[in-house]
Amino acid sequence: MPRFAPKNPDFHKAATETFDAQPAMRTLGISIARLEAGEVELAMAYSAGFAQQNGFVHAGIISAGLDNACGIAAYTLMPAGASILTVEFKTNLLAPAKGERFAFRANVVKPGRTLTVCEARAFAFDGARENLVASMTGTLMALLRRDAAVPHLQNMSPA
Amino acid sequence: MPRFAPKNPDFHKAATETFDAQPAMRTLGISIARLEAGEVELAMAYSAGFAQQNGFVHAGIISAGLDNACGIAAYTLMPAGASILTVEFKTNLLAPAKGERFAFRANVVKPGRTLTVCEARAFAFDGARENLVASMTGTLMALLRRDAAVPHLQNMSPA
Amino acid sequence: MPRFAPKNPDFHKAATETFDAQPAMRTLGISIARLEAGEVELAMAYSAGFAQQNGFVHAGIISAGLDNACGIAAYTLMPAGASILTVEFKTNLLAPAKGERFAFRANVVKPGRTLTVCEARAFAFDGARENLVASMTGTLMALLRRDAAVPHLQNMSPA
Amino acid sequence: MPRFAPKNPDFHKAATETFDAQPAMRTLGISIARLEAGEVELAMAYSAGFAQQNGFVHAGIISAGLDNACGIAAYTLMPAGASILTVEFKTNLLAPAKGERFAFRANVVKPGRTLTVCEARAFAFDGARENLVASMTGTLMALLRRDAAVPHLQNMSPA
Repeated sequence: MPRFAPKNPDFHKAATETFDAQPAMRTLGISIARLEAGEVELAMAYSAGFAQQNGFVHAGIISAGLDNACGIAAYTLMPAGASILTVEFKTNLLAPAKGERFAFRANVVKPGRTLTVCEARAFAFDGARENLVASMTGTLMALLRRDAAVPHLQNMSPA
Repeated sequence: MPRFAPKNPDFHKAATETFDAQPAMRTLGISIARLEAGEVELAMAYSAGFAQQNGFVHAGIISAGLDNACGIAAYTLMPAGASILTVEFKTNLLAPAKGERFAFRANVVKPGRTLTVCEARAFAFDGARENLVASMTGTLMALLRRDAAVPHLQNMSPA
Repeated sequence: MPRFAPKNPDFHKAATETFDAQPAMRTLGISIARLEAGEVELAMAYSAGFAQQNGFVHAGIISAGLDNACGIAAYTLMPAGASILTVEFKTNLLAPAKGERFAFRANVVKPGRTLTVCEARAFAFDGARENLVASMTGTLMALLRRDAAVPHLQNMSPA
Repeated sequence: MPRFAPKNPDFHKAATETFDAQPAMRTLGISIARLEAGEVELAMAYSAGFAQQNGFVHAGIISAGLDNACGIAAYTLMPAGASILTVEFKTNLLAPAKGERFAFRANVVKPGRTLTVCEARAFAFDGARENLVASMTGTLMALLRRDAAVPHLQNMSPA
């Protein structure tokens, strides 16, 4: 596993603050379990309110956890003051998301000045068993301060 | 736009029941706005509890809506008694999901006996404007009755 | 279908030159059939040398055509002097790529200063029939002149 | 890394024959470097005829190698007599595909009766350096003998 050096010495605080600023994470009951430069693990308890028709966690909720794990992992390697956007992600659902709690583990595959690529996996803890239930590859984008006045995605408009 | 003939004459009822059986859709405030053979539109009101750090709807929640639109669209073309699973999906976030309400529109691109491919788009209604905020391509799988005793994904296990 | 205004009045010439500069397109026998702002169609004749084990065109070759269609479509909307890179793409293989000739049709879904998202479809012409055989969603990146001295992807390196 | 037990004791021969039956692999100069149950490495020399406009290997050719690595890795775990199809794949281009030779390394993430999910990475050997240039996640489908008379993808047609 490649290790990457953070540009922001306060990456732990910055990444935690960005995570905590998301109401969706509180609503979904997702929290940071482990946070290092280029790697993060999030934890989520099962909630019946976010299940699909078979009682398993909905694929969109699994994606929310995976996407956030990717985003926070990418953010740990971005310079101080950067904002972060998800460009795209791809999720494979590998097994039913059945369990009493879940872990979302992400790591940076390739950091970049503008774009960072991460991979993540979701695990379900069903009694004593840990099952791989989904995987994600995601592309994240850093918005640096000089870009802040002209944020990319908001400026994308048909002429 | 290709049109497809449903195999199940009661597809409308079957698809609606499958949708309604998902607690996650109620929790997220997502409902069916339009439902035809191979096409569906879902509606969602903005909820601050599902926002990310800028107040926009979280990408995972957008994915939940898009995935469900794809799933229901695919389900309308499946035979009576089939169950449906999402195999994988890919989401592109195209603009901030900023608005007071949202639409998720999906249509079947290629129906199949086992696998069906759908495309979906998410739109945000921000005042008088309708903005394209995300797109998805998804692969859905039909589990037919003869398969029901040996559901595919639950049987996938390392030897 | 949204229409987009090109920033480069000579986009036709610029896009054609970028296409023609790729030896891979000549080797694969792919040419431009139609080129407008934000839209392109490429054409390819069947070649047995690029088949997989059933005599159908290999998925990687189909991806080469789809990716190039996306890239050229995106390039038509970029400013003069920009370079273009593919960030990522996702291909769904929908039917066997069986036919005597093929078309790759792409259009821009969302143009941006840095990133542009395109969709493309591959069609096989098998006798009198035109079959949809694959689809792609791709993300393309513009490298502008001010970035040229510090090209993004080449600078991505573990610290 | 999870290890998987092959169902076909002659998987090495079966996978090699499937690989060798593809003219595209010969044309692209791709060969099997290593083959185990659930894992494969392919090798390719640089060929100027498959370059894009900067002299790097075209993303479609990189995808051809990655897709084939995924397919062969999946095939090693399929039962005797199965045929294999690529359902979909997603490629991230991480760095310029610049080098005198290339390796495509794939492993099975989740084997299944019908669908198998694989991950692959492409590396470029540029002098003494080995660079990660691309990644892929792919979904592969087994066509078993009982299905052979009604091959799935060829039967997918609008009613």
